Amino acid sequence: MRFIQQLQAAWQSSDSLLCIGLDPDLERFPPSLASGNGNIFSFNRAIIDATHDLVCAYKPQVAYFSALGAERQLEQTIAYIKSSYPHIPVILDAKRGDIGSTATQYAKEAFVRYQVDAVTVNPYMGFDSVQPFLDYQDKGVIILCKTSNTGAAQLQEVQLQRSGHNSEPVYEYIARLVAEEWNFNHNCLLVMGATWPQQVARVRSIVGDMPFLVPGAGAQGGDVGSIVQAGQTAQGSGLIISASRSILYASAATDFAQAARAQAGALKNAINNYRKKHAAAL
Amino acid sequence: MRFIQQLQAAWQSSDSLLCIGLDPDLERFPPSLASGNGNIFSFNRAIIDATHDLVCAYKPQVAYFSALGAERQLEQTIAYIKSSYPHIPVILDAKRGDIGSTATQYAKEAFVRYQVDAVTVNPYMGFDSVQPFLDYQDKGVIILCKTSNTGAAQLQEVQLQRSGHNSEPVYEYIARLVAEEWNFNHNCLLVMGATWPQQVARVRSIVGDMPFLVPGAGAQGGDVGSIVQAGQTAQGSGLIISASRSILYASAATDFAQAARAQAGALKNAINNYRKKHAAAL
Repeated sequence: MRFIQQLQAAWQSSDSLLCIGLDPDLERFPPSLASGNGNIFSFNRAIIDATHDLVCAYKPQVAYFSALGAERQLEQTIAYIKSSYPHIPVILDAKRGDIGSTATQYAKEAFVRYQVDAVTVNPYMGFDSVQPFLDYQDKGVIILCKTSNTGAAQLQEVQLQRSGHNSEPVYEYIARLVAEEWNFNHNCLLVMGATWPQQVARVRSIVGDMPFLVPGAGAQGGDVGSIVQAGQTAQGSGLIISASRSILYASAATDFAQAARAQAGALKNAINNYRKKHAAAL
Repeated sequence: MRFIQQLQAAWQSSDSLLCIGLDPDLERFPPSLASGNGNIFSFNRAIIDATHDLVCAYKPQVAYFSALGAERQLEQTIAYIKSSYPHIPVILDAKRGDIGSTATQYAKEAFVRYQVDAVTVNPYMGFDSVQPFLDYQDKGVIILCKTSNTGAAQLQEVQLQRSGHNSEPVYEYIARLVAEEWNFNHNCLLVMGATWPQQVARVRSIVGDMPFLVPGAGAQGGDVGSIVQAGQTAQGSGLIISASRSILYASAATDFAQAARAQAGALKNAINNYRKKHAAAL
């Protein structure tokens, strides 16, 4: 199945736009999980088992695994989701970007080695650095547009002046490039940070129904109501709203998985309160 | 020792600006090395042993390892250079970039797990995505500016208009940001593709003696004479000129290491023909 269809099915079956980011940080694990890479998979599995009915996707962040030499645990985590909850898409948050021959290797890392359904990529190097990912037609390619961090404005908000075009900030130019030139396989999505509702609304007006991955809804403080109102499509979807640390580390005690479920459920409901179809159903 | 000093010492002792990129591609290995990840380290070691006196740095490309699940072979390769040729800096070509908390993990991957001396990073997400790397004062942080690929122009060459500033392309703005705001620990370098001599000259005029990593001198067809003349400092250095596939796969037979040495020696000499101090010495 193509990624966009897989995602639509997951939105529907879970009645949720929530994605949980899997950023395993040994220092924040509960004491019941003794330190050591072996527990990374145990931690992730407990989180997944406790939240699988509340989410439309999981998003492991490769940096947390590679910093520890824990690629095996990343493989196990992804394989566990695929075998236990095969309807839930898995997004590898990797933000890769390199010349074509190297990007081919990164695409292989994501789609062949790790077998994920989608991956985040960086647009700085232009089309040929993204094409090897796009060529996997059934996979999602999620391109950084306006990221959630405070430094995002430094380049992404600067005004571009192209001849024959109106002045526009870098992130709008990227959104336009993706929608008009890079989406020929209908497998592109954009990263739009939860901290920037105005920009989310602006990009929604440029790219139609293209789905957004929206990180920063948890620890980074993005306001869920504003972001849903700014970014949802006419169908009340179009968003993968991701939170990581606020859910994973909701409790530092042995009840971490139950606490994660409570936090995820609250965020799912908060999001649904602002969705059009839910408003219509009242 | 700080990375810039380590690099200067390596330029001097090797009398070379050449860097060899280690991009192990099993499909291009000689038949004498049967396929399988175990031979990646053997291949790299043969290349390193055959070329160590000709180079100022080695640059393993992490994508080629991670596509194959060959992180162990990457660790072995780096450890081999460090133990056998400790004066040669090792650059991890990874082009990482993410929000601060994740960038902290990527910096740990490069500098703690792999123990490299420098890493390439992507500036699209702004200062806070780069700072965790900069905080390792003794390590080099090599920021993408104008990359060697054909698609580079799509974003990097577009004109920016900042209020109170002259119009300038994205890559010049990045060069200025790095030189004026990000280089407080004097550990920044820039990626300037060998395919763009005019842009290399322009950025040299903006950033003073800041070293450039210049990929694309081999298979990508960058002209060595133009690039050395455009980018060298008054001391006839300032450049780490990298070639990968043209050296690694100079021969597909059992003589691959000797062929790599011949190719590397020829490229080193071609570069030196255009260096100021060599011209002065004639």
